[in-house]
Amino acid sequence: MSGASQNGGAYQQLLARTRDIGRLRGAEELLQWDQETCMPPGGLTPRAEQLALISGLAHEWLVVDEFGRLLEAARREGSTDGDPVRTTNLREIQRLHDREVRLPTALVKDIAHTSALARHAWVEARAHSDFARFAPLLARLIELRREVAERVGFTGEPYDALLDEFEPGATVAVIAPLFAELREATIALLRRLQAAPAKPDASILTRAFPVPVQQTLSRQLAELLGFDFERGRMDVSAHPFTTSIGGGRDVRFTTRYLEDFLPSSLFGTLHEVGHALYEQGLPPEHIHTPMGWSVSLGIHESQSRTWENFVGRSRPFWEGCYPRLRGLFPSVLHDISVGNFYNAINAVRPSFIRVEADELTYNLHIVLRFELERALILGKLNVQDVPEAWNEKMRDLLGVTPPNDAQGCLQDVHWSMGGFGYFPTYTLGNLYGAQFFAQAQRDIPDLDGRIRAGNCRPLLDWLRTNIHQHGQRYRAHEIVQRVTGKPLSLEPFLEYVTEKFAAVYGL
Amino acid sequence: MSGASQNGGAYQQLLARTRDIGRLRGAEELLQWDQETCMPPGGLTPRAEQLALISGLAHEWLVVDEFGRLLEAARREGSTDGDPVRTTNLREIQRLHDREVRLPTALVKDIAHTSALARHAWVEARAHSDFARFAPLLARLIELRREVAERVGFTGEPYDALLDEFEPGATVAVIAPLFAELREATIALLRRLQAAPAKPDASILTRAFPVPVQQTLSRQLAELLGFDFERGRMDVSAHPFTTSIGGGRDVRFTTRYLEDFLPSSLFGTLHEVGHALYEQGLPPEHIHTPMGWSVSLGIHESQSRTWENFVGRSRPFWEGCYPRLRGLFPSVLHDISVGNFYNAINAVRPSFIRVEADELTYNLHIVLRFELERALILGKLNVQDVPEAWNEKMRDLLGVTPPNDAQGCLQDVHWSMGGFGYFPTYTLGNLYGAQFFAQAQRDIPDLDGRIRAGNCRPLLDWLRTNIHQHGQRYRAHEIVQRVTGKPLSLEPFLEYVTEKFAAVYGL
Repeated sequence: MSGASQNGGAYQQLLARTRDIGRLRGAEELLQWDQETCMPPGGLTPRAEQLALISGLAHEWLVVDEFGRLLEAARREGSTDGDPVRTTNLREIQRLHDREVRLPTALVKDIAHTSALARHAWVEARAHSDFARFAPLLARLIELRREVAERVGFTGEPYDALLDEFEPGATVAVIAPLFAELREATIALLRRLQAAPAKPDASILTRAFPVPVQQTLSRQLAELLGFDFERGRMDVSAHPFTTSIGGGRDVRFTTRYLEDFLPSSLFGTLHEVGHALYEQGLPPEHIHTPMGWSVSLGIHESQSRTWENFVGRSRPFWEGCYPRLRGLFPSVLHDISVGNFYNAINAVRPSFIRVEADELTYNLHIVLRFELERALILGKLNVQDVPEAWNEKMRDLLGVTPPNDAQGCLQDVHWSMGGFGYFPTYTLGNLYGAQFFAQAQRDIPDLDGRIRAGNCRPLLDWLRTNIHQHGQRYRAHEIVQRVTGKPLSLEPFLEYVTEKFAAVYGL
Repeated sequence: MSGASQNGGAYQQLLARTRDIGRLRGAEELLQWDQETCMPPGGLTPRAEQLALISGLAHEWLVVDEFGRLLEAARREGSTDGDPVRTTNLREIQRLHDREVRLPTALVKDIAHTSALARHAWVEARAHSDFARFAPLLARLIELRREVAERVGFTGEPYDALLDEFEPGATVAVIAPLFAELREATIALLRRLQAAPAKPDASILTRAFPVPVQQTLSRQLAELLGFDFERGRMDVSAHPFTTSIGGGRDVRFTTRYLEDFLPSSLFGTLHEVGHALYEQGLPPEHIHTPMGWSVSLGIHESQSRTWENFVGRSRPFWEGCYPRLRGLFPSVLHDISVGNFYNAINAVRPSFIRVEADELTYNLHIVLRFELERALILGKLNVQDVPEAWNEKMRDLLGVTPPNDAQGCLQDVHWSMGGFGYFPTYTLGNLYGAQFFAQAQRDIPDLDGRIRAGNCRPLLDWLRTNIHQHGQRYRAHEIVQRVTGKPLSLEPFLEYVTEKFAAVYGL
């Protein structure tokens, strides 16, 4: 708390303390980034302790009585009418404080420490496809998350309290019916596509694409989309992610490269760059305060999905970009036309791995996780029964059975990080994103033509103006209403997939 | 302070808090390591703020009243007779506390913040050989360091208070006469060598050595010496350094590669690995407490010099290792015998750059810095006069004049980090190291033969047993006495250089 200015009004002091918490969180992000990209194996134990310490500290600074008193004094200090910055900052700092004040520091540190160890156990378990190695720590994390839910409180069910951490205001009551409708519509469309006589040939994506060239491609794509390497980096990690270590001034994303599966790095890069562009577009003058933070994980995901899918899996993008791709891999792609390539990256096929799923079946993977997580948190599903429940749901939703747990319930890193309530934001992001993109198509003259010409700037500017620059000024539902004139709806996404895949499948 | 156990006696609570400070320092090390190896340019401002925050916090935790009370209670709690761990920990925690309690947090944060910015200004200044760009921040750092000296206190002169931070117990009164004698002896020997009829040909070291092969060599050498890559990493940075991010479990060193100057990476690696081996050899059970810390920077440097010089510039080492080197660079070294190579890496020649200096003239570079630093801190030399004073001393001591400030007073990173009082530890390290190595030669049967056979283990074991495993149990002067049976003396070093260079120069 040492950086808090002793001068200025309560509001200024509150902001100074909030910025110090942000700096600490940035250090925490670096500790995590380094764990994924650089840390030698021996560093695990001290790293888990460091993360617990810093995470506990950031929590303490937020919940300490003095912070609460400053917050109250700042609220009394003056009217916030007509000052959206002050209104936003006070509202969101209050929200964070109210949530965290209910969590004892020991619990927060326990979660950080257990997560760092669980992350390691999960890696081992997945490598050996041995769920039993991960189960005890998973069970412990679920216990800890249940305790969080009980302490934070909820009106519907405990899972709401977890959702709220990642997507403020989201509840099972709203999400469950939305997901149910999406599930039915998706399965219906999937059946139509599966019945189509001709199917795209996706096998070309599993040819041998030399990794060094993939790296060049990733860098070029990041630059094409507008990523600023002066304010960020690109690295390799087993599980791609994006993080902000120094606000928008130090934004890092990672990719993974598989020689015989180009989509991994190609769409992984476009996806993470989408996240990174949001972070780089947040207003720098509000660094480390709510006005400089992203709205929610769902809105964050809408940005990654925009670049990965609505742009990166679109025909105009590849009509412009395919010659470059073929130039990088001349011998691999010499016999593939842009039309073949476009169809290949849009083949729809139920598969085991979420991150490799097509745009349509992706959401079924999320529905599965949402349902299992709810059951785990409610205690209706025991940890040891997860593999069986997972496989059963895979059959129900996608009609396939994973050959082992590594390709089943051990595939994702998120549970090892204690991230229950996180997965639904991925599908929310797809929905928000489709609704935003439909609006961008209306607002930007000849958006397709510009994308075809390799000019991503108009879209980025539109996102910056409509979304990035506002920080947390608007909640997720408000920004959707504000930007598109309508509340969140399934319609834009369903229209998009129906039209797109009907064309790809010649229906 | 959140990690302090509320259970256990005062001593246990004190250790828990000390370990938390160590964890925080580890995070600080990571922030610095990342700044040198990974951070994008945009990250500078937030990084400086993060470093100031964490550095201020670690300081606060050490000086807060409660810590002082715990320390007192731990001292009263029981006799420390016969328990060297407890004795050492209490003595050294007390020493740190007594020193830091005199420094206001604002000063500590100001130094961390100013240093991060000065580091950047220095890079720019050096790149343009423009001292004026660095001068204002250098002046500010000197002011800040003077304030530190005044607050910490001293019996001789202010510079003693700065020396004490890096080499506890060292004073100008002891160092100045030692350095004066070394200076005279060095210059006398240098004149003899300069008058020798035949001189080694060092030009072979400036042939073109492909950087990727140099990287392979560095890794092989690190492994040969005993560096454990499971508990560490090797990276590239503009200025080689070694750091411990998670005690001995995560030790990282860096090297720099110049295609046309092999010694940069070759001896840089051997040097940094020497530091890293010390860190990896500290007792893991005492991580983040004085019993798990290195004695002093001088003792640290004795370890790096042992491997860089007493081993890495020795005839037995290259008799064993040269075939490997020639195997890596067959076309570059095809016409060079091991004898030519040994002579080349031991050519003595006054030069501008400290880190590229030979073993003999190296100490003259340190004497120069020691004298200038003293004058700067005493206010007898003004910052704007540094370039002139530097060049004048270069002429006096080494007989050469730097062509510009980049190769003169801007060459070192240390002043930009506020590290006044740091340079003397380099020469102390050479002296400690020579005395230790002479003893190792007596203690280890056929040490030369083992080194010639590529077996570095006996020497490493000897260093671990005699030095590393003790942490801070003994002060620098005690460990020298204990290991060699004598107090620190110039003799072993002077004997070593006289005998070695007489042979190289055929005198």
